[in-house]
Amino acid sequence: MNPYDALPKTPANHVALSPVAFLERAGDVHPQLVAVIHGPQRWTWVQTRARARRLATALAARGIGRGDTVAVMLSNTPQMLEAHFAVPATGGVLLALNTRLDAAAIAFQLAHGEAKLLLTDTEFAPVIAAAIAQLDRPPVVIDVDDPHGPGGTRLAAVEYEALLAEGRDDVPLAGPADEWDAIALSYTSGTTGNPKGVVTHHRGAYLNAVGNAVTLAMPHFPVYLWSLPMFHCNGWCFPWTLALMAGTSVCLRRVEARAMLDAIRAHRVTHYCGAPIVHRMLIDAPDAWKAGIEHRVCATVAAASPPASMIEGMARMGFDLTHVYGLTEVYGPAAVCAKQPEWAALPLEEQVERNARQGVAYPLQDAMGVFDPATGAPVPRDGRTLGEIFFRGNIVMKGYLKNPQATAEAFAGGWYRTGDLAVQDADGYVKIRDRSKDIIISGGENISSIEIEETLWRHPDVSEVAVVAMPDPKWGETPCAFVALRPGAAVTESDLIAFCRARLAGYKTPKRIVFGELPKTSTGKIQKNLLRARVADAA
Amino acid sequence: MNPYDALPKTPANHVALSPVAFLERAGDVHPQLVAVIHGPQRWTWVQTRARARRLATALAARGIGRGDTVAVMLSNTPQMLEAHFAVPATGGVLLALNTRLDAAAIAFQLAHGEAKLLLTDTEFAPVIAAAIAQLDRPPVVIDVDDPHGPGGTRLAAVEYEALLAEGRDDVPLAGPADEWDAIALSYTSGTTGNPKGVVTHHRGAYLNAVGNAVTLAMPHFPVYLWSLPMFHCNGWCFPWTLALMAGTSVCLRRVEARAMLDAIRAHRVTHYCGAPIVHRMLIDAPDAWKAGIEHRVCATVAAASPPASMIEGMARMGFDLTHVYGLTEVYGPAAVCAKQPEWAALPLEEQVERNARQGVAYPLQDAMGVFDPATGAPVPRDGRTLGEIFFRGNIVMKGYLKNPQATAEAFAGGWYRTGDLAVQDADGYVKIRDRSKDIIISGGENISSIEIEETLWRHPDVSEVAVVAMPDPKWGETPCAFVALRPGAAVTESDLIAFCRARLAGYKTPKRIVFGELPKTSTGKIQKNLLRARVADAA
Repeated sequence: MNPYDALPKTPANHVALSPVAFLERAGDVHPQLVAVIHGPQRWTWVQTRARARRLATALAARGIGRGDTVAVMLSNTPQMLEAHFAVPATGGVLLALNTRLDAAAIAFQLAHGEAKLLLTDTEFAPVIAAAIAQLDRPPVVIDVDDPHGPGGTRLAAVEYEALLAEGRDDVPLAGPADEWDAIALSYTSGTTGNPKGVVTHHRGAYLNAVGNAVTLAMPHFPVYLWSLPMFHCNGWCFPWTLALMAGTSVCLRRVEARAMLDAIRAHRVTHYCGAPIVHRMLIDAPDAWKAGIEHRVCATVAAASPPASMIEGMARMGFDLTHVYGLTEVYGPAAVCAKQPEWAALPLEEQVERNARQGVAYPLQDAMGVFDPATGAPVPRDGRTLGEIFFRGNIVMKGYLKNPQATAEAFAGGWYRTGDLAVQDADGYVKIRDRSKDIIISGGENISSIEIEETLWRHPDVSEVAVVAMPDPKWGETPCAFVALRPGAAVTESDLIAFCRARLAGYKTPKRIVFGELPKTSTGKIQKNLLRARVADAA
Repeated sequence: MNPYDALPKTPANHVALSPVAFLERAGDVHPQLVAVIHGPQRWTWVQTRARARRLATALAARGIGRGDTVAVMLSNTPQMLEAHFAVPATGGVLLALNTRLDAAAIAFQLAHGEAKLLLTDTEFAPVIAAAIAQLDRPPVVIDVDDPHGPGGTRLAAVEYEALLAEGRDDVPLAGPADEWDAIALSYTSGTTGNPKGVVTHHRGAYLNAVGNAVTLAMPHFPVYLWSLPMFHCNGWCFPWTLALMAGTSVCLRRVEARAMLDAIRAHRVTHYCGAPIVHRMLIDAPDAWKAGIEHRVCATVAAASPPASMIEGMARMGFDLTHVYGLTEVYGPAAVCAKQPEWAALPLEEQVERNARQGVAYPLQDAMGVFDPATGAPVPRDGRTLGEIFFRGNIVMKGYLKNPQATAEAFAGGWYRTGDLAVQDADGYVKIRDRSKDIIISGGENISSIEIEETLWRHPDVSEVAVVAMPDPKWGETPCAFVALRPGAAVTESDLIAFCRARLAGYKTPKRIVFGELPKTSTGKIQKNLLRARVADAA
């Protein structure tokens, strides 16, 4: 026996990794620093910790425990931040619903995720009421009546503040006994209309929360503006990063240029994240709105490569832009286009070209690369050979909830297979060439083209349909549907758009319907690549 | 069965944490940035990675594998950095010898640690030859003949560069299958003259390497000056932190003010660490040596509270000072006197008073506090009640090698018990009041008072002896021995100092011997507190 092996783990030297710990420490070490700003409200770290402790003990008293799903339908508010610590501290699993979803999608997620309890902002009462009505076993509902929100109908007897009053603020939050326990459940639009439930674990959430700080080389006490929805991959783990760094969260119910710029000036915001549309909005805002913002702001962009005009526009505002890439399955971004010091001296077009790439694995992710999906061999670093992006490491989901087949396929060969097709440059940087999943990304939201196709198929006049992304100056992409009609049908473009709008969330509704025969391969498969080329030409 | 539990670990989503990974990534992502500066030599990250890969494969080819101890007797040189990656990548355990040790202590560590191989700088050939001569089963010796060192006798047939030539640079370094595997062995002077072998693990080394970056809020590409010996708790994990941040290591064989200041100016050093004496040296250096250093430098001080004059002196140079606290058992510092933003506005004395405390747990350490060692209950946060400092978390050693009793004692009650006595202030900050272990800290080196006492006891004229720390303007503390002689003895102070010098490393030799009767408690225990008061009055 090797004498080094005679030293087992003990409670003194082995503690399960959980980001819940960061809130306990922030409350201890920096109790009086401001944790949350929401309109005129301010909460310090010791107050935020007290509120999260109250929420956790109140949830536990209502029976929430290990492996129980707690759903939230919340904007970027203090309650949403508190839930990110309190729910995992009960042993529960946080299901953050996309607030733009329609009732059917919400009902699916609540049912599939077996949500036991739901915290819902009154703003979303109509869609939640409709979703709940579709459920055989609805969750217990708690209303969140945000005094700084637009208000709305109450659905439940108990309001969030009354729930907190049921709890105790003297019981420290604690992580699970096993860091492999689930921390969150997030549904992805996936490759088909059937959403998959991505289950993440405490270990990965802890490491990615720390990884954010390292990747962005964050200072102590950052001031973070919540333009990125926290329902997106748990805000890319930033709720936990901010507790680690004892930073300040500036809440934002709606992403609007003026409100963002006012918050950046007033609170000296140092960091924010978002889809390209968010940055574009700031760039295009009137100069008068930007007056008085003199400090450096670190902006992070995901979901699409920043074009030259965006990099230029950000530089003109004095904002640094970092380009990241990822998927729900890897906790949001898990790759970064790491800037080399020498890039700063390059002509702008070359900087843009380099920054447009998806880049390299995050420092705490084990590996990312481009592989031949058939053989599992890495592609040559020639910038030409197409392969699939694979990730491996601790910042990869546990798997898909109640979906062993999809889980096994995603992890085949010991890597997480993203389905994104890419090349790898000589410097190892990865560059996406196509999305094998045909996902449309509109305003940072993923839309499954197949979900829209299935909706259109339900119309009696539709014979064939294919939906592809159409470039859009505001949203990045919007859905464009190509439709072949049955003989003799007389339905119009606006008829079909109205048909979709009645059945889909607004952002999923196609902005354009093109009638005509669909191009097909010899085996009868619709050639989406040709359709994409057509909309690109038309755009 | 909870459906969240049906998602097991796989190679895709669970990888053992090991800091070895940081070098592979630095070589991939920042291949052309400078990793190491040593005199006129420069090595980029891809070169350093190639050298570490060669060392790892050469060691493996010579039979080094999992659980094998590889010792190094090296200054802060590139070879020392390379060994911090290559040895763990073989599965081996790095035993970094204190280069100031005497032959007997080295022989003890090599024998107790069962070192299979030793890399030794030719500067240390005499003491290593003497140590090896004392061993029944000496390790294989490889000479490191540093072209920028003082030179020295060769002990071995094989030199380091020839060893590297045996290896391959195309085999990636990889961590162990189990992150609980041992990564390093470091002997502490401990509470008695018998050194204990502190065994650390890959998980802790990874987390502390990341924790350094977070604790100091390090920027990308820091430039780190190696004033802190890498043989001290593996340079507090900074060799691994620098790979994580793709920083530059500026090597330093000897800690001298002029060389440090020249390096800080020439390489725009951003960070360095050291005992108070290191910072004092820079403060006391002539102004001319400091000319041209205009940038901000982050200095970290451990092993003793920085006095007001030091904080003032550092501020005058434009250096930021961070005060940290720890022990070998917690990978070096695992507590930091985290600065509150509002302290900067306080009068200097109050800043000094706040910064003089040992502070709070590192952000990635689970917990540190002051406890009643008998009951295990936390002491009140009143700044007065004495207790023992306990740590708990992932940045705590596996245990003591081949010493189950000491390991069990250290971890009794589910915490690591430091043996340091302290109080806890109302803000939770910990402040050491006394060292229960009577350790003397001289120039940042721990000296066991009992080891010196045992040496003096061997002198035929000595009847009783107690060694305590004596304040010293240069070294912080030096040993002072109180000796009661046998009746009729005529030995002098200089006789006894010479007697110790022949048997102990120079820095362990008492600087002063005081003759006379020793104060004792009613049960016959020597009252060291009274002796300490006596030397404090005399100082």
